[in-house]
Amino acid sequence: MGIPEDLARSWLQVALKEARIGWDDGGIPVGSVIGDPRTGKVIAQGHNQRVQQGDPTAHGEMSAIRNAGRRRDWSELVLVTTLSPCPMCAGTAVLLGFREVVIGENRTFQGSEDWLREAGISVTVLNDIACTTLMERMQTERPDLWAEDIGT
Amino acid sequence: MGIPEDLARSWLQVALKEARIGWDDGGIPVGSVIGDPRTGKVIAQGHNQRVQQGDPTAHGEMSAIRNAGRRRDWSELVLVTTLSPCPMCAGTAVLLGFREVVIGENRTFQGSEDWLREAGISVTVLNDIACTTLMERMQTERPDLWAEDIGT
Repeated sequence: MGIPEDLARSWLQVALKEARIGWDDGGIPVGSVIGDPRTGKVIAQGHNQRVQQGDPTAHGEMSAIRNAGRRRDWSELVLVTTLSPCPMCAGTAVLLGFREVVIGENRTFQGSEDWLREAGISVTVLNDIACTTLMERMQTERPDLWAEDIGT
Repeated sequence: MGIPEDLARSWLQVALKEARIGWDDGGIPVGSVIGDPRTGKVIAQGHNQRVQQGDPTAHGEMSAIRNAGRRRDWSELVLVTTLSPCPMCAGTAVLLGFREVVIGENRTFQGSEDWLREAGISVTVLNDIACTTLMERMQTERPDLWAEDIGT
């Protein structure tokens, strides 16, 4: 991991708060943050809004990236997300040229981490128990919604 | 190609119209269509709106998919797009489970067609000269915007 672990974990807490906002709204509890290691600050954050916006592309990572807007410095920023990124979100990280992605957990869903690594992106999985617990609750209590979101 | 070529080419014309709307608005001229081969009808269409909406995720394919909304029958539908899909859009096609993607041209930009094929998706490139001409004009007249959009 290129950034200090305590910074990564503090950004993950912000992402987890986003995930919980989405869950409380009846949505899918995945949250994401775009952090700038040059300042330690969060540039943008967001959560999955498939249900709330009726938008199948509104995963947590995508929402955070939309909130970050048009930029040219993605390679200097870090994408932090509560769940292993799906093919759409991994592909987006590759397109934009992120060099570092931090993942809360990949036990409940194994995304396209290989695409990230093949593109030379540093990938760190923090195995955060709170992220896992929230996703387990999602998969138990809203299984149809989860299947719809992840394309199965 | 699973669908008849004349159907693919007629849908591509709709996608190309979308691309031209985007170009006339000062944007990036990529347009896309979601077609339903069961009826021959266009389900949804859209064009790149990075400039118009200030949204780095609003590629043509993503806009068309957003306009299609929440569905469960992506595997029955065809994604038609004027330009070879970038990693974000290819990843999204994989996530949603499309089984067929039709591409107007890939001479001006070679996207992540390999990800599509590895996922078992049928990929057809129509080598449409009007699509190529429009993208060449884009790359010549708005090179900075193109570099921003494609992450270089």
